[in-house]
Amino acid sequence: MARGEEPMLTRRPSSHNDERATEEDALLTGQRPTRQPAASRWARYREIALFTWGLVATAAVIVLAVVYQHQTSKTTSERHGERPNGKRNLVFMVSDGMGPTSLALTRGWRQYVNALPWDGTLVLDKHLIGNSRTRSSSSLVTDSAAGATAFSCGHKSYNGAISVMPDHSPCGSVMEAAKRAGYTTGLVVTTRITDATPACFASHVRTRAMEDQIAEQLIGDGPLGRNVDLILGGGRCHFLPNTTAGGCRADGRDLIEKADEHDWNYIGTREDFDGLNLGSSVKLPLLGLFAPTDIPFEIDRRHVDDEYPSLEEMAKTALRALKDATKDSDQGFFLMIEGSRIDHAGHNNDPAAQVHEVLAYDRAMQAVIDFLEEDDTEGLMVATSDHETGGLASARQLNVNYPEYLWYPDVLANATHSAEHTARLYFSHLSSSQPSKADLRKYLPKLINDNLGIKNVTPEEIEYLIEHPIYAPWTLADVISKRSQTGWSTHGHSAVDVNIYASDRHAAKKLQGNHENTEVGEFLRWYLDVEEEVKEVTKELRDKLEISSGESWLGPIPSQEDLAKVETHLMSPQRGFEQA
Amino acid sequence: MARGEEPMLTRRPSSHNDERATEEDALLTGQRPTRQPAASRWARYREIALFTWGLVATAAVIVLAVVYQHQTSKTTSERHGERPNGKRNLVFMVSDGMGPTSLALTRGWRQYVNALPWDGTLVLDKHLIGNSRTRSSSSLVTDSAAGATAFSCGHKSYNGAISVMPDHSPCGSVMEAAKRAGYTTGLVVTTRITDATPACFASHVRTRAMEDQIAEQLIGDGPLGRNVDLILGGGRCHFLPNTTAGGCRADGRDLIEKADEHDWNYIGTREDFDGLNLGSSVKLPLLGLFAPTDIPFEIDRRHVDDEYPSLEEMAKTALRALKDATKDSDQGFFLMIEGSRIDHAGHNNDPAAQVHEVLAYDRAMQAVIDFLEEDDTEGLMVATSDHETGGLASARQLNVNYPEYLWYPDVLANATHSAEHTARLYFSHLSSSQPSKADLRKYLPKLINDNLGIKNVTPEEIEYLIEHPIYAPWTLADVISKRSQTGWSTHGHSAVDVNIYASDRHAAKKLQGNHENTEVGEFLRWYLDVEEEVKEVTKELRDKLEISSGESWLGPIPSQEDLAKVETHLMSPQRGFEQA
Repeated sequence: MARGEEPMLTRRPSSHNDERATEEDALLTGQRPTRQPAASRWARYREIALFTWGLVATAAVIVLAVVYQHQTSKTTSERHGERPNGKRNLVFMVSDGMGPTSLALTRGWRQYVNALPWDGTLVLDKHLIGNSRTRSSSSLVTDSAAGATAFSCGHKSYNGAISVMPDHSPCGSVMEAAKRAGYTTGLVVTTRITDATPACFASHVRTRAMEDQIAEQLIGDGPLGRNVDLILGGGRCHFLPNTTAGGCRADGRDLIEKADEHDWNYIGTREDFDGLNLGSSVKLPLLGLFAPTDIPFEIDRRHVDDEYPSLEEMAKTALRALKDATKDSDQGFFLMIEGSRIDHAGHNNDPAAQVHEVLAYDRAMQAVIDFLEEDDTEGLMVATSDHETGGLASARQLNVNYPEYLWYPDVLANATHSAEHTARLYFSHLSSSQPSKADLRKYLPKLINDNLGIKNVTPEEIEYLIEHPIYAPWTLADVISKRSQTGWSTHGHSAVDVNIYASDRHAAKKLQGNHENTEVGEFLRWYLDVEEEVKEVTKELRDKLEISSGESWLGPIPSQEDLAKVETHLMSPQRGFEQA
Repeated sequence: MARGEEPMLTRRPSSHNDERATEEDALLTGQRPTRQPAASRWARYREIALFTWGLVATAAVIVLAVVYQHQTSKTTSERHGERPNGKRNLVFMVSDGMGPTSLALTRGWRQYVNALPWDGTLVLDKHLIGNSRTRSSSSLVTDSAAGATAFSCGHKSYNGAISVMPDHSPCGSVMEAAKRAGYTTGLVVTTRITDATPACFASHVRTRAMEDQIAEQLIGDGPLGRNVDLILGGGRCHFLPNTTAGGCRADGRDLIEKADEHDWNYIGTREDFDGLNLGSSVKLPLLGLFAPTDIPFEIDRRHVDDEYPSLEEMAKTALRALKDATKDSDQGFFLMIEGSRIDHAGHNNDPAAQVHEVLAYDRAMQAVIDFLEEDDTEGLMVATSDHETGGLASARQLNVNYPEYLWYPDVLANATHSAEHTARLYFSHLSSSQPSKADLRKYLPKLINDNLGIKNVTPEEIEYLIEHPIYAPWTLADVISKRSQTGWSTHGHSAVDVNIYASDRHAAKKLQGNHENTEVGEFLRWYLDVEEEVKEVTKELRDKLEISSGESWLGPIPSQEDLAKVETHLMSPQRGFEQA
């Protein structure tokens, strides 16, 4: 046996190693030891066999252990959805007011319009992982403020609360905590950036009506300074003084000017937006406000694409800008993207507007998923709604006769504009030309045909529009809803559970199944690993509340009537009239 | 070294085994070999060390391999939801007509009645795994027949189809295939056992209206013989001749007698049911029909518990009976349990009846889960709905004023009976006492207060009930719905996706997320491993169709009008009138 072939493990210095000494002698002398030569040879073979056995078995142990270890760790993270360790990005999408029926309505409409088979589904459908219970602390039917507070703070609160608790004290939001932990943050919406959902992520007031104060806190003029790095959406009017055209603040402050002091780069036009090159030319912090109040419904916006960016474009821009901004950072970004006006289409009971809003949101979700798939940093998209709006049903009985089982997507396909837009044209016509009833009986059928694609409007419907112009947004939406056999039970919200979606069902395992909306909020802070920062922010907010005089920046404690009035004002049909 | 301690692997008969011979000599003589004693001793130590090493490593390999194998197989079946290999039981639960809002309505009501916190959830809520798209081949809004055909055959078909394809040819059902594969089978419902959902599992006709023919096929008088071992539910009238009290067949056949020829043990009363001792005293096949048509709504049944078993009791009985019957079998059982009348509460737009139906279903699900947890045989419960009924919304705007965000569960809690039951009392009163309008103006408010718990019925509502008694089931339900601010958009079905539940989300992994209803059907046959049997059954059905004369047992090809008429007849308010 040559030395190089000797088993390592049997080679140890020992005074008892006599056989070994004999072997070495044999090697040195070139002669085999003469005593018991066959027995010695066999002993060597046996040793080699034993050694090989031991070696192979040990190698197998090592291989198996490594494979098992690998398998177990992979399995654990996939099955238990453990929190990632390193840098990560989180995109939280909110489909405001989108209930379960919005999906069936939009999917059926899309299948009809694109002649798809019955399994032609939405992007959303491919990412469903569960659903969310939505009641607030004050009602079985939540509003967007309590809904967004569940997401931002992880706590139930009362309808109207902007990241304040049922006792009206502030609760630190996940976005404020993320900012403190070093994340870069963004808000993308199609409504006013001062509306309830975005407001809850970076401001605290006792009623959602305080949009002027929300605007101040959003730009960093609140107790915590600036917590948002990127804002894209509408709602410019709450940033401009009441003395300015386009301003709707109750005071004379110019927050666009003020934003400059907080280092914001402000843009306000489609041209400015195009200059961002879908995010590759962004300098943070960026404040982009592209409409005085809401960005138009998608069904209308697509005709004025040169005026307003789409949700998909804004989402892509935000993702690229935040990716670039965090390129060299240890922390990633946290972005909230809201399909805000699905809710408004529900409030108006306008099914044609709704399907376009849901599809715009669906496209934005695809953009987020594409980004996450391509991006090197670990990332997750989680999406849900705050509540359902309208009591939407894709079926409607029109009289006492038992209904057939169907609805008519073609009616929605014929509409080129929203009922809201059509009503504004009507309001403008009323105020500009003081038409007679006879004029209106000619004007309205043409208006309805041109915008809603409906040729068989009835004399009763026309008379109602003439007698009750204030209700035109609702009446016009009902003209479409009836003919498509789309049902609605309210212009407000309903209590049905809403869907939860994720880009990766394993990473979002904690949200599979049925959950309380506060668990969505808990998930966000957990995924970002900012639970401690949430506590710190909450403490700081409460400390600053105590040292400030009176009720200060949180506003006075609202009465039930105050809170009810807010919704009525925000969502009644008059709103369309006022904005015309 | 004693022989008993010798390593087995080194002991082999060999002419070259000289050292071994020396050792054996030593053992025999009781003297150690004298030549090279130290070297030899060392060699033995070394061999022992090598052997121990090999042995320990091999043991480690075996342990690791077993653990890894176990882990992998467990992981695989948990993560990938692989089909089990051995004996298994499958319980498929159907909540007919239960849409997403039914859950929010029932949960909110239960939280109110039992003073539960906002996270006091239903059994159902804990088992949500996804949702199902429901459109049929003929409409965006399915009926129960096309819905159940998707489950039984895994194929889309037209509204009204009982396990026949869009071309009107029969498709083998999963229950027929399971029976052929050796499973024991059962159907438990609260409606007529001849209604669409149970019918699809063990019969084939071209329109759901053919309930007489469905009854024949169910007892085994069809082309395939008997495929069901246990039936518990209502619908006795389609088994009894038109000449008998309680019979509603178009012909004079007595299927209860005929069932005897197919070995059925028939029972028809609560007393008989109690004799089953919740399943421990069952002899299969068992035909239990406890009501002429439907078993009363749970809200009414609880007052006549001595007449009708509950869904939970029937479910427990079926599970125990099927477990006992398959005790010594290689195959387990396949049981379908339907909460049938959630749908009827929806058709009536009766929210009080609905919450009790959903809770009865919730209790039945708990019974199934308890059974599966305790039972030794591998088993799975999968549950879904065929469609939503009513366009239910837990919110309702009562006039043009913008609504508050709420609904009133206490109104439902005050109702002691269903609107259907209340209407039947009214119908009976009308036909028995020929009351005057003045009488009715006294009678109706008391009737409504006594049964629906509503004290403030309006004169307009009373006048409508007097003028249109035929619509009383709908009118009375609306009296409750309005006051609880519960919305409905139709007395028919709607297109919204419905929830999917499972006792084990891992085993039902294929159904996590959003799915077409046909995928639920595919899952059932996959889990039972009866795909081949489905093909065989389908072939046999088609063969038997071809050799039979004309349109035979499948019935004639129905017209659109025929199909529409079925629903109208089954679900119009007149139905309650006819049954009074």
